[in-house]
Amino acid sequence: MRAEILGVGTELLLGQIANTNAQWISEQLAEIGVDVLRHEVVGDNFERIVEAFTLAASRADVVIATGGLGPTQDDITRPALAAAAGLELVRRPEIEDSLRERFARLGREMPESNLLQADVPSGGRAITPVRGSAPGLVVQLDGARVYALPGVPSEMREMMEGTVLPELSALAGPSGIASRILRCVGMAESRIAEILDDLFTGSTNPTVAYLAGGGEVKIRLTAKAASLSEARQLINPMVDEVAARLGEVVFTTDDEELEQVVGRELTARGLTIACAESLTGGGLATRLTAAPGSSGFFQGSAVCYAARSKVDVLGVSQATIDGPGTVSEECAREMAAGARRVFSADVGVATTGVAGPEPHSGEPPGRVWIAVDAGDRTHARGMRLPGDRAQVRRWTEEAALDLVRRLLTDLPLPDGDRLI
Amino acid sequence: MRAEILGVGTELLLGQIANTNAQWISEQLAEIGVDVLRHEVVGDNFERIVEAFTLAASRADVVIATGGLGPTQDDITRPALAAAAGLELVRRPEIEDSLRERFARLGREMPESNLLQADVPSGGRAITPVRGSAPGLVVQLDGARVYALPGVPSEMREMMEGTVLPELSALAGPSGIASRILRCVGMAESRIAEILDDLFTGSTNPTVAYLAGGGEVKIRLTAKAASLSEARQLINPMVDEVAARLGEVVFTTDDEELEQVVGRELTARGLTIACAESLTGGGLATRLTAAPGSSGFFQGSAVCYAARSKVDVLGVSQATIDGPGTVSEECAREMAAGARRVFSADVGVATTGVAGPEPHSGEPPGRVWIAVDAGDRTHARGMRLPGDRAQVRRWTEEAALDLVRRLLTDLPLPDGDRLI
Repeated sequence: MRAEILGVGTELLLGQIANTNAQWISEQLAEIGVDVLRHEVVGDNFERIVEAFTLAASRADVVIATGGLGPTQDDITRPALAAAAGLELVRRPEIEDSLRERFARLGREMPESNLLQADVPSGGRAITPVRGSAPGLVVQLDGARVYALPGVPSEMREMMEGTVLPELSALAGPSGIASRILRCVGMAESRIAEILDDLFTGSTNPTVAYLAGGGEVKIRLTAKAASLSEARQLINPMVDEVAARLGEVVFTTDDEELEQVVGRELTARGLTIACAESLTGGGLATRLTAAPGSSGFFQGSAVCYAARSKVDVLGVSQATIDGPGTVSEECAREMAAGARRVFSADVGVATTGVAGPEPHSGEPPGRVWIAVDAGDRTHARGMRLPGDRAQVRRWTEEAALDLVRRLLTDLPLPDGDRLI
Repeated sequence: MRAEILGVGTELLLGQIANTNAQWISEQLAEIGVDVLRHEVVGDNFERIVEAFTLAASRADVVIATGGLGPTQDDITRPALAAAAGLELVRRPEIEDSLRERFARLGREMPESNLLQADVPSGGRAITPVRGSAPGLVVQLDGARVYALPGVPSEMREMMEGTVLPELSALAGPSGIASRILRCVGMAESRIAEILDDLFTGSTNPTVAYLAGGGEVKIRLTAKAASLSEARQLINPMVDEVAARLGEVVFTTDDEELEQVVGRELTARGLTIACAESLTGGGLATRLTAAPGSSGFFQGSAVCYAARSKVDVLGVSQATIDGPGTVSEECAREMAAGARRVFSADVGVATTGVAGPEPHSGEPPGRVWIAVDAGDRTHARGMRLPGDRAQVRRWTEEAALDLVRRLLTDLPLPDGDRLI
């Protein structure tokens, strides 16, 4: 099955946003064995949208379009798709009702322009939205199945996951592509590739791809076979071999987030955690609470930017502030202990340092201390992290979460001053 | 002048990277008044690259391609472009020399495959690289000028800035596109479009586009004229008119983040802020500290998930926990006051509620209270937010930051139970 992905929106052609929808959709289609042959982007221009639909449908079995389904006058994907398919737009009373209900539920009057969202090309289907107001469309065009989805990423993903991917998986039949992602923290991509090099040299099945970012390296293994189970049989022993060679730097063989792994390990042990954050500014807490169920293990976080609040809220000693200072092992240790005590948690984890771009307390950007305190066991680590403010914050979170993971699972505790 | 941008690379079609090159090039072309009509992406497939060059050149005056100029066997943009233009590839001795010199300088032996990078279509030009080893190409094809540039962003940008943009600026003559983005919180996209409808009906210059997401609506105005300053003169009065019609829901006319605006208003008044967060889990703190300079106004945040820590850390009264509960106006108000006191801040802002997907304390997902406490002035607001856990958290952050903005700038304080 061959697919093309069509982005609609002048904001893409003006470079105001990147076409991340095409990237995400491509990733999803690759996983179910659908080949993506082309991406295309056109602006909010009727003729060019019609032409793009016509051309894509003439070349592919499936066309997935995003954008241009909103209620405003620049949203013209709906009539353009109808025109390309030579179909009339028909107003669907049941969609009209659900639009009116949605507005009523929100206690607002519905602008008449929203009614355009109830129009569906005759013979086509609508995909009912959960999050947004814009229904998606499914239309047959020149032998190709065309999906038109909203451009808002969360609304697009909802329809991809709820409708498009299940339908295409069923159409594609027993697709034989299996993919697994291992994730590593604490080792550089080039070192990982070196260790695994001979495993994949000359191998076209499975294939390996490395993706570094956010202080982690993802290793994606992909195998094709006549069936999914055969593909899995090809890939699973390879995953085990990779995990065995790399050892403790692999924190998941199933593409979990590091914070998910930490949450799982805490839950398994019936332990709770609290954070004391300076330069990460709430990032640790945000990540630990992103998943449902985090209230089972997460007690809280004290984000203490000011030195005074480190003393007032976390009980860091004034002697530490005046002596080694806020960017120090002592401060990180006292913050971790403070978080544990203040939030009545089993484990406390702390970050303090300089995110940049300016130096702070006489320390350069990237100078960071992290500490973890589990009562009977504690550990602190000083690091010098490269990159801009966002990268220093992200890498500090990674290092702190990794320290908690290692402490919980009795792995060696690193002292090195580099994350990778 | 009409341009198309062609990305070459299977990694783009597999979704392993986003097409940020197309975004950056589009932005640069917009600034010199070149219209981008389409983006296209094809994989490392000879026929499809030839076809894409042919099609793009038939529609546009300028085609800018990126990727596929490297020395490995999947880099085939060079022969594909020659084939599309019906030209022979000719090895250029001077490029061969500079490739050999480059490798000698690096103390490495040059693989023979690198010599392919010295091939240039007859009658075409090469663009000499500074950073990388891959020369760019300039070829005339079917009346269009085609640039082929490396896919590595830094190498591509070097050639865009050094060669492509100066050449196209000269060809295009004096012209300019100006673009401004206003951002709104607290009003739905359809309502905004309705209020502005007559301003833009039938207007092709300036044009308007709406982009909704994350609890905000972005309004982008774009104008074209003979020069950038004339384009700005067209657009600026329109920005003022839009801002005047929409009033206080517009929080920026310069595409600032809401937290930037809040930080600016705090800084201008010499005030500090602290947060008390339950369901937002550190999201408010993360956003307020994302920008350099936040240590000037941000004191800290107490992320208190557990009811007990709301009492222990923030001083919420046990009577409130036992009576109206954690998801209540009383609790939000006491949390805001607590944040202000604990962190010695001028302003406290609090969030409490149910992010979902499960109900909590007898309240359904999306039930949220926010409060702001500035000592002399306080305000609380109960809301019922739609969407999943991530959306409820994000919209709660938006509503809380907006409440701070409004309180600081003496705007009306909303009581409605919907964000938009």
